[in-house]
This record gives sequence, structure tokens and C-alpha cells, in this order.
Amino acid sequence: MKPAKRLDKRPSRTLLDASLHHEALKALPEGERRGRPDLVHFFLLLGLDSALNKKGGLTLLVHTRNDELIRIAPQTRIMRNYNRFVGLAEQVFREKHVPAKEPLITLESGWSLERVVKEALPQGVHVAALKEGPSHVAPGDWVPARAKASRELAVVIGGFPKGDFRSDVAGFTREVVSFGAEALTVWTIEMELIAHWEAATGVFG
Amino acid sequence: MKPAKRLDKRPSRTLLDASLHHEALKALPEGERRGRPDLVHFFLLLGLDSALNKKGGLTLLVHTRNDELIRIAPQTRIMRNYNRFVGLAEQVFREKHVPAKEPLITLESGWSLERVVKEALPQGVHVAALKEGPSHVAPGDWVPARAKASRELAVVIGGFPKGDFRSDVAGFTREVVSFGAEALTVWTIEMELIAHWEAATGVFG
Repeated sequence: MKPAKRLDKRPSRTLLDASLHHEALKALPEGERRGRPDLVHFFLLLGLDSALNKKGGLTLLVHTRNDELIRIAPQTRIMRNYNRFVGLAEQVFREKHVPAKEPLITLESGWSLERVVKEALPQGVHVAALKEGPSHVAPGDWVPARAKASRELAVVIGGFPKGDFRSDVAGFTREVVSFGAEALTVWTIEMELIAHWEAATGVFG
Repeated sequence: MKPAKRLDKRPSRTLLDASLHHEALKALPEGERRGRPDLVHFFLLLGLDSALNKKGGLTLLVHTRNDELIRIAPQTRIMRNYNRFVGLAEQVFREKHVPAKEPLITLESGWSLERVVKEALPQGVHVAALKEGPSHVAPGDWVPARAKASRELAVVIGGFPKGDFRSDVAGFTREVVSFGAEALTVWTIEMELIAHWEAATGVFG
């Protein structure tokens, strides 16, 4: 599909998409880690559609490399079509509150990942960061154990296609956990966390 | 994004997409149940990226309303970008074998859903169909119980946005199971099945 329509817009208003803006991304710092709104799209769909979310047990936050914090209300219905989702995301970056009246999605600047962990999460919540590593645990073991120990759990997942967190996540989370030696996709990790948390806390039935 | 380019193609060569071809779908029988390649896209991504698939424990099949059977090899890498996936799907319907040499995705005609269950699955596999219903079980209970009873499990999931199976699934599956009174999305069901099957059979670790 031709990107003609989207390139008519001012570049600063265009959401970078690696499948359309390959050359532009190559010229940007860390371009190989950027331009993947599809990762956020599926992350939100899988989370918002889950039984855990429908029962009020899930909060989804998105932190950007420019230290923006995007909050998505649990009752938000994200469009399933990718091109429409890109339009929504561009609107969020432009207007900061969508819809303008009683917003479901909000964007605020000035949030480092450390500040998100320290100030945007409930007091006392157990915060873990996930990354690949040689020493790992099965999600079907780790999640139920955490559910037994803590009423609430926050997990930081990297939403970039390559490399490590830019922030020192070990410095401001309680533990860094690994589910495997190789990187898993955002939705693979999210699937494991949600399904096992639901089973451990009795969300179904 | 303008659908201009895709409408240049002969209609029979264009994958119907409810977000682009709303009027065309309204004129078709059961149009409200069609035009959702996004459901198949995310279904394939979530399955192919899972640890279960990477360990060789998952087979994904897609059955169409025109009784086509699409087989996707476990090592297939599906494009994450939706528009590119639509291009791939159109190629599959046109060429039946993709890529032409050593195909990873194949399409065959003449497969009713009943025939798929009876002839395309391994002998003796336990086949269940999933649909919403008043009497339901938690996936975290049902999947481990099934894993204990059967070495292999096949589950038929409806990949349409509305309504029931057109085939009499109860007539040719061993059980019809429900995870809830309301319909869940394809990926919500898939997530539960894969994550709990992995835990029950020790795929991680």
C-alpha cells in the first residue's frame, strides 16, 4: 500500500513505521529499535481483550523513548485494524487526550521509566522487569509464586525489536526475571503473564 | 489510508477487509462475519512466536468459509506489519503454495471443517471445539486436565467476529467447551490454551 497520504503530513506528525519509513529510520539514532507501532498495537489488543482486564484486574501503561507516559483506560476499545490504530496513535501524540471529553487515553511528558515505576504504580506493588537471560524460570512457576506472595504485580516489558532497556531497570525494580535465554516478543511475554495470573487468582469461573 | 491501490486489482483477487470494504461486505451473504484478516494475522503471530511453537509443539491450521484449508509450517515467519500480511494472504489465495519452492504455507480446496477434523489431524488426537456458553470452565483447570489425559489436543476456535460455527461442530468433535458466557476473541482463547498447555507439559525451563 502506498504511503503517499501519510507522507503529506509534516514529518513530526507522522508515526514512524519501520515497514514504510525504512530510510528515514536508518538516519535516526537507534533507528533499528524504533518505528514499531505494531508492537504496541498487539500489546494493547491482547491485554484489553483478556478476561483479566474485563474483570478490572489489569492496567496497561506505555512508556516511550522520549519519556512520555501513555495511560490507557481498561474500558478502551482499540481498533483492530492496524492502519486505523496508527491514526489513533498519531492523534494521541498530537492532542494528548483522546477523546477530548472524558479521555480514555492520555499522554504526559517528563516521565523517565524510573519515575513511572516510582510514581505511576500503586504503593507497595511488587515491580519486576523481564529480559532474556541464561538463568531463567518458567512463567507457569514464577507467576503463581508471585501471586501467592503479592496481591499486586507490575511487570516492565521491553517493547523494542532489538537490544536492552536504555534505563538501568535493575536499579529501580525489585527483581529482574527471565523466561528464557532468547528474547521473546512482547505478546508472548504478555500472554504468559496474563494467563497464569488469571489462573492463580481465579479470574475465570 | 486510501484503498485506491488495492481496488485496482480484480475484486476476486482482493482480500476483503471490513475496515476498507464496508459497502462491498454489506452486499455479501453474512457480510458481518467476513472481512477480518486481522483476526488471522494476530492468531498466527501469537501462535508462531510462542515458546510452544518454538519447541515444535504447535500446529496451526486455518479453515475458510469456502472450505479451504491453509497449513502454516511452524518455522514460518509471518510479517508483523498488517498491510504486508494482507499482501501475503492474497498471494496464498492466488498461488496456493508460498514460497513456490519448499512452501511454508499451502492452500487446498475441498476441505469441510468436518473433513479437517477427521483427516487433517493426527490419529487419536482429542478434538474439542470452543464456544461461549452458560456452563463454563476455567482454562487454567481444563487445559491441564486435558494435558494429563491426552498427549495431543486439537482445539477448533471460531475466527469470525459474530455468530456461531456454520458447521455442526458438536457432531464431529469429542467435546464442546466454554471458557465463559460471553464470546472471547480468537487471541484471548489462543493465549489461554497455549500458556496453560506449556505449563502443563513443561515447555519452559
